[in-house]
Amino acid sequence: MLPAKVAILGPGLIGGSLALALRDSDPSRPVSLWARRDATVQEVQRAGFRDAGTDLAAAVRDASVVVFCVPVEKIADLARDVVLHCPNSACITDVGSTKQRVVDWMDPLFPGRFVGSHPMAGSEKSGFAAASTTLFRGAPCILTPTSRALTEAIEGIRRLWLEVGARVELMTAAAHDRLVARISHFPHLAASALVQLLGENGSDSQHFAGTGYRDTTRVAAGSAELWAGILSENRAEIVSALDEFVEILQNSRALLSENRLSELHDFLFRAKTTRDQFPVHPVARDV
Amino acid sequence: MLPAKVAILGPGLIGGSLALALRDSDPSRPVSLWARRDATVQEVQRAGFRDAGTDLAAAVRDASVVVFCVPVEKIADLARDVVLHCPNSACITDVGSTKQRVVDWMDPLFPGRFVGSHPMAGSEKSGFAAASTTLFRGAPCILTPTSRALTEAIEGIRRLWLEVGARVELMTAAAHDRLVARISHFPHLAASALVQLLGENGSDSQHFAGTGYRDTTRVAAGSAELWAGILSENRAEIVSALDEFVEILQNSRALLSENRLSELHDFLFRAKTTRDQFPVHPVARDV
Repeated sequence: MLPAKVAILGPGLIGGSLALALRDSDPSRPVSLWARRDATVQEVQRAGFRDAGTDLAAAVRDASVVVFCVPVEKIADLARDVVLHCPNSACITDVGSTKQRVVDWMDPLFPGRFVGSHPMAGSEKSGFAAASTTLFRGAPCILTPTSRALTEAIEGIRRLWLEVGARVELMTAAAHDRLVARISHFPHLAASALVQLLGENGSDSQHFAGTGYRDTTRVAAGSAELWAGILSENRAEIVSALDEFVEILQNSRALLSENRLSELHDFLFRAKTTRDQFPVHPVARDV
Repeated sequence: MLPAKVAILGPGLIGGSLALALRDSDPSRPVSLWARRDATVQEVQRAGFRDAGTDLAAAVRDASVVVFCVPVEKIADLARDVVLHCPNSACITDVGSTKQRVVDWMDPLFPGRFVGSHPMAGSEKSGFAAASTTLFRGAPCILTPTSRALTEAIEGIRRLWLEVGARVELMTAAAHDRLVARISHFPHLAASALVQLLGENGSDSQHFAGTGYRDTTRVAAGSAELWAGILSENRAEIVSALDEFVEILQNSRALLSENRLSELHDFLFRAKTTRDQFPVHPVARDV
């Protein structure tokens, strides 16, 4: 029996890396790639992926696993076509960095067979040209099955990510969105706000910025287009993180303005204790 | 004529580096070192500084420049003794990372002759053992003369820092404290608050933290003792920065909760534009 066919829709950085990693792990496994643009199809064909094209029906026909690697806002339209052409038995997943909205949309379309994924790996670069065989190795990948997801669907998607070297963890879509709001999305917004605190002539302050300030605000140099989309997508959880953060700040404000030195020390020490437990080398990569 | 004698009170990381850098620049210049503890005196004597001791009067006698390199909270007591023994013509400075309170204390004690300094250079290490000849090279050093500071005092302190390779800038003590609150002190507090946002079991989230999160929160691993002292010292300006920061965050909250995508983009883009103007290699070092 041949290994099951994987259909990858959107061979950009993530989709392309998944295709490369699957081929690296088992060259006999059929992988089909679908792209919207002819130029992208030619690019992946030059990389040796012969089963690539702009025909969605052909890409998903006979697939055991279908992976949506398109931007989150493009998933809904594409999914309506995919459901018409892919086998009823196929496991379906996506790779978006927020999960609740995608799950809400996909679960009714593919009952029991959709299991959202968030491989926590990325790069400042994008597109198939930046794809890498090793992108997912050692990276966490969070799966967000609903309560009605079939065990075989969860297992199918879990094996897909294990095969490319990711460390799989399961949680609800809500828990995922809450976690990434706190560990990625809101910190990005906070870094942007910190830079704005320097005021109109903020760049004049550059001469006085040490490595601490540079590190703290580095992510604020990320793509405004990309991050506006990410923040908007997960806005409910980010607003909730923001409110909680402001409450924490207001508590520390009271300690400062009343000069309660030992409580201020405890505030800093609690954060230091948590932060010190992070391993020196990160396992997750950004976005 | 011999070069003017410099008295350095407190040969820790900063005071020790200043002594080493002055000797490196002009071995004929007399440098006297005062330390509270015998062990420290012996340590600097082993490094070749023969004019070192625990006798404050001897250290500052005949000095042209006196540099207080002790912790800010120790300056007042020491200054009351120094004023009895140092020449009336000596220029006086300190190296504290906040300036208004020190200036308010020192200016009446040394009328016209005190000019506060903040060399923006540091290290995670402390003490004379960590001192380095090159610590100040290329680093900014902010001087905060009052309106009644004598030109010769400003020039004397300016030449001292230029001689060890620092880039000297002048501003008022109030402007200095406002700047460092925004570029160092408040960002430290914000990083600590971000870590606390992960909640009670925050360190469980470590598996999902990418390099962005790690950079954003790195300073929160700094010494809680050291930073509680720094934050307390500059608390008025930090509280003002905190209030302004919360206002910026609340503006972004409105953009998020109403999903005003293009304004959210502009918010991120403004920060990116400022942040992109920072040179890749920092010139200032922390603390």
